[in-house]
Amino acid sequence: MAVVPAITEVDMASFSPVQTVRATVVQASTIFYDTPATIDKAEKLIAEAAAYGSQIVVFPEAFIGGYPRGSRFGVAIGSRSARGREEYRKYHAAAIDVPGPEVDRLASMAGKYKVYLVMGVIERAGYTLYCTVLFFDAQGQYLGKHRKLMPTALERVIWGFGDGSSIPVFGTPVGKIGALICWENRMPLLRTAMYAKGIEIYCAPTADARDVWQSSMTHIALEGGCFVLSANQFCRRKDYPPPPDYVFEDSDDNLSPDSIVCAGGSVIISPSGSVLAGPNYDGEALISADLDFGEITRSKFDFDVVGHYSRPDILTLSVNDHPLNPVSFASTDRSDG
Amino acid sequence: MAVVPAITEVDMASFSPVQTVRATVVQASTIFYDTPATIDKAEKLIAEAAAYGSQIVVFPEAFIGGYPRGSRFGVAIGSRSARGREEYRKYHAAAIDVPGPEVDRLASMAGKYKVYLVMGVIERAGYTLYCTVLFFDAQGQYLGKHRKLMPTALERVIWGFGDGSSIPVFGTPVGKIGALICWENRMPLLRTAMYAKGIEIYCAPTADARDVWQSSMTHIALEGGCFVLSANQFCRRKDYPPPPDYVFEDSDDNLSPDSIVCAGGSVIISPSGSVLAGPNYDGEALISADLDFGEITRSKFDFDVVGHYSRPDILTLSVNDHPLNPVSFASTDRSDG
Amino acid sequence: MAVVPAITEVDMASFSPVQTVRATVVQASTIFYDTPATIDKAEKLIAEAAAYGSQIVVFPEAFIGGYPRGSRFGVAIGSRSARGREEYRKYHAAAIDVPGPEVDRLASMAGKYKVYLVMGVIERAGYTLYCTVLFFDAQGQYLGKHRKLMPTALERVIWGFGDGSSIPVFGTPVGKIGALICWENRMPLLRTAMYAKGIEIYCAPTADARDVWQSSMTHIALEGGCFVLSANQFCRRKDYPPPPDYVFEDSDDNLSPDSIVCAGGSVIISPSGSVLAGPNYDGEALISADLDFGEITRSKFDFDVVGHYSRPDILTLSVNDHPLNPVSFASTDRSDG
Amino acid sequence: MAVVPAITEVDMASFSPVQTVRATVVQASTIFYDTPATIDKAEKLIAEAAAYGSQIVVFPEAFIGGYPRGSRFGVAIGSRSARGREEYRKYHAAAIDVPGPEVDRLASMAGKYKVYLVMGVIERAGYTLYCTVLFFDAQGQYLGKHRKLMPTALERVIWGFGDGSSIPVFGTPVGKIGALICWENRMPLLRTAMYAKGIEIYCAPTADARDVWQSSMTHIALEGGCFVLSANQFCRRKDYPPPPDYVFEDSDDNLSPDSIVCAGGSVIISPSGSVLAGPNYDGEALISADLDFGEITRSKFDFDVVGHYSRPDILTLSVNDHPLNPVSFASTDRSDG
Amino acid sequence: MAVVPAITEVDMASFSPVQTVRATVVQASTIFYDTPATIDKAEKLIAEAAAYGSQIVVFPEAFIGGYPRGSRFGVAIGSRSARGREEYRKYHAAAIDVPGPEVDRLASMAGKYKVYLVMGVIERAGYTLYCTVLFFDAQGQYLGKHRKLMPTALERVIWGFGDGSSIPVFGTPVGKIGALICWENRMPLLRTAMYAKGIEIYCAPTADARDVWQSSMTHIALEGGCFVLSANQFCRRKDYPPPPDYVFEDSDDNLSPDSIVCAGGSVIISPSGSVLAGPNYDGEALISADLDFGEITRSKFDFDVVGHYSRPDILTLSVNDHPLNPVSFASTDRSDG
Amino acid sequence: MAVVPAITEVDMASFSPVQTVRATVVQASTIFYDTPATIDKAEKLIAEAAAYGSQIVVFPEAFIGGYPRGSRFGVAIGSRSARGREEYRKYHAAAIDVPGPEVDRLASMAGKYKVYLVMGVIERAGYTLYCTVLFFDAQGQYLGKHRKLMPTALERVIWGFGDGSSIPVFGTPVGKIGALICWENRMPLLRTAMYAKGIEIYCAPTADARDVWQSSMTHIALEGGCFVLSANQFCRRKDYPPPPDYVFEDSDDNLSPDSIVCAGGSVIISPSGSVLAGPNYDGEALISADLDFGEITRSKFDFDVVGHYSRPDILTLSVNDHPLNPVSFASTDRSDG
Repeated sequence: MAVVPAITEVDMASFSPVQTVRATVVQASTIFYDTPATIDKAEKLIAEAAAYGSQIVVFPEAFIGGYPRGSRFGVAIGSRSARGREEYRKYHAAAIDVPGPEVDRLASMAGKYKVYLVMGVIERAGYTLYCTVLFFDAQGQYLGKHRKLMPTALERVIWGFGDGSSIPVFGTPVGKIGALICWENRMPLLRTAMYAKGIEIYCAPTADARDVWQSSMTHIALEGGCFVLSANQFCRRKDYPPPPDYVFEDSDDNLSPDSIVCAGGSVIISPSGSVLAGPNYDGEALISADLDFGEITRSKFDFDVVGHYSRPDILTLSVNDHPLNPVSFASTDRSDG
Repeated sequence: MAVVPAITEVDMASFSPVQTVRATVVQASTIFYDTPATIDKAEKLIAEAAAYGSQIVVFPEAFIGGYPRGSRFGVAIGSRSARGREEYRKYHAAAIDVPGPEVDRLASMAGKYKVYLVMGVIERAGYTLYCTVLFFDAQGQYLGKHRKLMPTALERVIWGFGDGSSIPVFGTPVGKIGALICWENRMPLLRTAMYAKGIEIYCAPTADARDVWQSSMTHIALEGGCFVLSANQFCRRKDYPPPPDYVFEDSDDNLSPDSIVCAGGSVIISPSGSVLAGPNYDGEALISADLDFGEITRSKFDFDVVGHYSRPDILTLSVNDHPLNPVSFASTDRSDG
Repeated sequence: MAVVPAITEVDMASFSPVQTVRATVVQASTIFYDTPATIDKAEKLIAEAAAYGSQIVVFPEAFIGGYPRGSRFGVAIGSRSARGREEYRKYHAAAIDVPGPEVDRLASMAGKYKVYLVMGVIERAGYTLYCTVLFFDAQGQYLGKHRKLMPTALERVIWGFGDGSSIPVFGTPVGKIGALICWENRMPLLRTAMYAKGIEIYCAPTADARDVWQSSMTHIALEGGCFVLSANQFCRRKDYPPPPDYVFEDSDDNLSPDSIVCAGGSVIISPSGSVLAGPNYDGEALISADLDFGEITRSKFDFDVVGHYSRPDILTLSVNDHPLNPVSFASTDRSDG
Repeated sequence: MAVVPAITEVDMASFSPVQTVRATVVQASTIFYDTPATIDKAEKLIAEAAAYGSQIVVFPEAFIGGYPRGSRFGVAIGSRSARGREEYRKYHAAAIDVPGPEVDRLASMAGKYKVYLVMGVIERAGYTLYCTVLFFDAQGQYLGKHRKLMPTALERVIWGFGDGSSIPVFGTPVGKIGALICWENRMPLLRTAMYAKGIEIYCAPTADARDVWQSSMTHIALEGGCFVLSANQFCRRKDYPPPPDYVFEDSDDNLSPDSIVCAGGSVIISPSGSVLAGPNYDGEALISADLDFGEITRSKFDFDVVGHYSRPDILTLSVNDHPLNPVSFASTDRSDG
Repeated sequence: MAVVPAITEVDMASFSPVQTVRATVVQASTIFYDTPATIDKAEKLIAEAAAYGSQIVVFPEAFIGGYPRGSRFGVAIGSRSARGREEYRKYHAAAIDVPGPEVDRLASMAGKYKVYLVMGVIERAGYTLYCTVLFFDAQGQYLGKHRKLMPTALERVIWGFGDGSSIPVFGTPVGKIGALICWENRMPLLRTAMYAKGIEIYCAPTADARDVWQSSMTHIALEGGCFVLSANQFCRRKDYPPPPDYVFEDSDDNLSPDSIVCAGGSVIISPSGSVLAGPNYDGEALISADLDFGEITRSKFDFDVVGHYSRPDILTLSVNDHPLNPVSFASTDRSDG
Repeated sequence: MAVVPAITEVDMASFSPVQTVRATVVQASTIFYDTPATIDKAEKLIAEAAAYGSQIVVFPEAFIGGYPRGSRFGVAIGSRSARGREEYRKYHAAAIDVPGPEVDRLASMAGKYKVYLVMGVIERAGYTLYCTVLFFDAQGQYLGKHRKLMPTALERVIWGFGDGSSIPVFGTPVGKIGALICWENRMPLLRTAMYAKGIEIYCAPTADARDVWQSSMTHIALEGGCFVLSANQFCRRKDYPPPPDYVFEDSDDNLSPDSIVCAGGSVIISPSGSVLAGPNYDGEALISADLDFGEITRSKFDFDVVGHYSRPDILTLSVNDHPLNPVSFASTDRSDG
């Protein structure tokens, strides 16, 4: 399937006219190990956001495919377990190919409800998985994806590492949209690459529900002069299969079904650092706000991180955005190298 | 004759669903210098494997055309003999054109018995011979071929060198299939090219019956995270014409008709390095096993050679998969070349 | 005069042993236009901190020389005023040469009270002023300086722009110390240069007393895996000369002498984002905390911004740390430059 | 400290004359968390090998610093524990700086006992740790190091990733020596880089004691035409601190002090695939063999992986052996870079 | 008139079965300026060869139309003569159109005597003449032609230059047949193009009767692994009109009628370099030999110039076999050209 | 050792002035397995040629290192022998490194006797051997080398394949000198590459003593318009060690010590195809001739293979003269790629 996005990556120099855009951040849980049911749930949430008038809907990290919270996949230093390998096989089976039938379904959902859709998924590429965010436009087309560059801690055992070829920012009628995932948002050079692409709606799907996460979201809004939309899952123990099918190994899994295992904290922040909606730590919810794009200009007057407040004579960042492939074949090389 | 394979080369990113495939490795001898009789023998073996329920059948290196074991083709350093040249003429006559009538017959055998067929042959291309593996699907279509890239020792005197245009991996309903021949399997860059194409059923037709061959087969299964199916001939002296029509020059040919001249050792190994069937050193045989494809995922969780365990920022392999022709004619060039 | 610091810039690879260091951030106001009195005040504050056992004392931005809050220096777009020029003359007169007698006095104060001293000053270099931070060791030696790279808004009218040759991090027995000033702390590439030098005690002298400043300080502690010590002045109207000698033009200066014109907010934060002391918005104060260096290791285990969490294959920052001089003379050029 | 190795990296084309070299692989356990005692133990083992006449001594992966077998460092997907962070702090403290005092001591041990020494260590570089192998010559000089490129599974949480600037092969009077660590040995492109550097004594310090490891060692000897010296620790539970100081989390740590937690399997294999010594699964031991270098030539006559058996017209590997740094400073750049 | 040959150009990969073919090279003279008489003479010679059992008959260069030996056509540097122009007019009149009535007659002669016929002619294409070889099959069909690419010395004044669209090799039941003319046979790239087309019966109509010509014929047989059939005229002075109608200007034409002006030297050589018939320097004659095609295989076993003995990774020849036309018309252009 | 040749590769456009050069071809045998003695013998022969006034001396293929005539190195199809491997080890030991001490000695011999020296050697590059020709100038400098591109028959088992980076032609005061080895001289594309480099003294060290070799030498002189100097060894059985140290396996080695095993046939031919000296089939000898360079011009007037007699509009040869390396390292890449 050849995908020709209707909207190509953004030209940073272009200017988004002053406008107000209604945005919704989804705080909800994956139905773990059940990808079709999770996509059904996504559709219900999108429909609800669209009914409220939202033009862009942002889902949490790994919403499709799931975030295997509390699992250890059987690894300790120097050892693995057969049970852990089988757990990986099931997790791998719940992931989706990009492109593929689930991507097609998400695209048509975006088109049906006329929203720009930013969706956290687990992407299956052969036998390596990636923590990926997919982008769709309101006309029902798949735009592209971002693969998490650097997984955190135990994630490095289950997810591959993305490269510089998938850190897009898309210019759309509702603003310039991109996403970094979870602790990628702590990477100053990577954020600067996004700023350099002119990001206006900075999506931060995450799995971090701690208080200090809010500080980083506020800082990024100020640093980047952009709206920050952070989406986290709100999960109870019962959103995962009961033991022994799924075990929260970090807590010996003596958890009641209603125990909160991920508290959310989804939030929307303006370029001046004001919290527009959230953070919500109470339950599954849609967190929505109207984004006044004039606020970007007002904010960048003070501080323009890749503009008047940069020092390119002293500090220059190089981004290698070629794909990194261990093997390349002459016959499928692009003519330009 | 233009051949349009029904199954084109595989897209590595696609995912073979979990399944079990029954596979058979054939350990049997060529009827030397008698290609029609050898093909008849192949049909009988395929029928037997199909009756057992096999979905894929793998034959040894040079099964059709024969492996001229023990011959010297009259060459010493700086000299040749007329007898050696005539020996080559007979060997050349026993080889097959690709495509050609023997290929058509093999294709219909695959279709009749509904098996995927991987067959070692000696291919005649003008006056140069190649040690080649042919691939057929269960619907009776010829899929393509692999020509051995690098013959070993004296083989370099009788066989040409293949190029990068014929190292296919075919995506089929029974998995992604490819083959390297004999000591090609020792070439780490070539194996990596196969891994990069997503090979799942790694066929290794060979003529090496030594013990250390088993170590390499196990290593490749682990390295590639794939099933390894190694097929070798089991030959006695009497499978070759008696002297003086054919002489085992390396042993002065004082061999009894029942002397074993190639001991087999065919084997099937799982992606985790477990031996599933064989190695058999006893006689002609069908070596069969059921391949559980879930084992690939479980194995790649540990080690994905072109995925999460590669370092494309440091190590990159380039594969020139264009045909290497000494002479090209403008009128038959492809438009993009 | 050639200054050869006893402690050269840090070798990032070296390891600070586990220890606890007592640190004090000074929240106090300049005695505006009276540099000798301000230095006397500094000595009193240093003595107090030393008595409490502090090993390192950090002063706010422009403590010596003053932060001319509320002034406009007579500039409007397209016009200046004679009064503004005279105001600059007085401000220039209150600044200090580096090196110079005030620097010598500060050095001996550091030695007398046996503290590492980080002091915000206005540096006079000919007729250009710089917003600078000076570093002194506990043996009474001047170590070096950092000049603010990028002044904010109207500051650009009164202060020059520093270059990459003065962004030091000093390895000392109490840890690796460096400083960025005010909104320099919002510059992600500049912070990354500091991280790359191995900063452990990250000083952030500032003039920003807003709430959102706290978010950035917390974020930087997490991002850099370092202690953050932010020092701001706490000033009332009466810390500046009364009108007409000094006028708060932004407020028509109808301010009572006790009006707070800068609310402080000085704070000390640990590498894991915990607030160790402050923020204090109540008055002049010494904000102190004990820094447990084991916390750095524990924190970098999670996230090491220039170590295991970097992607140098994709994102590389180049820092031009050569001095930027408009005129160079061949006879003093280094041979390799 | 500038290190100028007496022996630079090898010129592949040079030829090691036929000779016999006595080599010893050490199979012994770290004294966990006690680096000085571990180095004392190393000296005793080196002395013993030298007394036997060994010219080269190879230690296991992470012998100094330790392999934290069975630990989980408190990580599960999406969570960490304070206890895990503290465990990391202790592990970090037991690691060594390179260069540094422990490196100096190892160098003088090599000189004292007149052996070439290959030593697995945990290297501390700021707050990131690397699994590293150090090389020393028999004159007591440190030659250089190799940092593991790709940690396995949970190792990715505690160790950084090496780059292509530290994959040396050293030409020495006892042959061309290099090392890959544990599952790096499964990386076909990385092995090929070593072959291209002309490696003759291929050291494989490991932590893998499974049977299939032997297949890979045999395969590598054949593939590379080199001697393979694989060194693994033999550890009992009592070689680690007792709980609660150290816990084998993968086994609930209901282990008796004499339980074997790593079974060794150290081995020496010739270029033709013959096992020369080991594998030993019985206890701590020195595994020794005499390496006949004529065997390399005899073996490469059959198969020379980067010589007569390569196909550089089709398969080319590029190795980026420049250091990968996230931040570079102009003043310390090399003139050509 | 569109000519659709019954036998298209050869597919090199196809294999000519082992066989023996009887071949005749004609060594005879044109009846100069008398084309009808020359064709009559040709028929007599073909009949004779056919009676001997020949299956293929090869005539010399320019047999029809004549080789104007000894003439200068009135040209000197910077001058021409009217006599020379008239001489060209007569020579042009003796040439033949292709296709045309003489071609039709030659075709029916080939059919009548059931021989493959290779005939040297002077082809008239408007006002340009070409030195051409025509090919006919034993069923009486015209197959195609080859125009000499590069005339020698003064030939460049009377003959045009062929292009790459007429260098055919025809696959026939008696082998793969092609021709190069005279010193074209010295052109290594052009010969290689013929080898790449799989030529087996390499015809070399010529006008060179020197001894060294034999060396080239032997070399080509070895180089190409093909039979070489070289046909030259045997002419006496009396085969040309007497002066002043025709003048041998290079010898002042003081020649007796029986003087030999072209000594023949026609020859047939096997792929192993053995002379099978000729060279004949005695008079007009038919030189015949039986060609054993097994000799090709035996020879290519040693050396296959475009097969196992080529180095397409280093040396590649491109052949532009499109017609070269000075004027092209859009309406007749092929879409891809 | 860095070698900076005094004479770089030739600029084809430059013109060698008319002159006469005295050249000697050496027809003599290696003292097999005794490289120092063979070099001593070479010196004696060079001295003799120099005394006769020779300015250029050409030795046969593999003079140093030896041509292992009649050996089989223990290989048959599918088998090797330990004896064959040991034979290879001895042959490998007799080869020389380039550069290396033997190369230094040859260079000084060239300088001492003031001759241009073209010497056939067996080159050792790690564990792969090459059949190589070395070039030296009369001032005693090593100029460069040519590695045989394509070994013949059983040679493919003992020698590697050269690439396009070592097919030099050197412009010297005695003419433009290059060499192809043995059956490389049968490769039309490779010869054309030499012609394109302007070769004038075409050296053809060989091991082919058959009559047909003379035809190829004559043809090449005509085709290339160059002097051809073909040097072959003249060897008796006794020039090799007696059995069982060395066995002529192709003849069961029932040879008397004086049996001729290589008959020579060394020859010098002019650009017009005239034999100037030789061929000699009688014994060891120096074959000498004076080369009149005016003959090149006279010959190219008729036929200039890469000049007026080429058709670059139709036939173009591409030569890949980059080195072919299976592995490349970024740090040693040339800046221009």
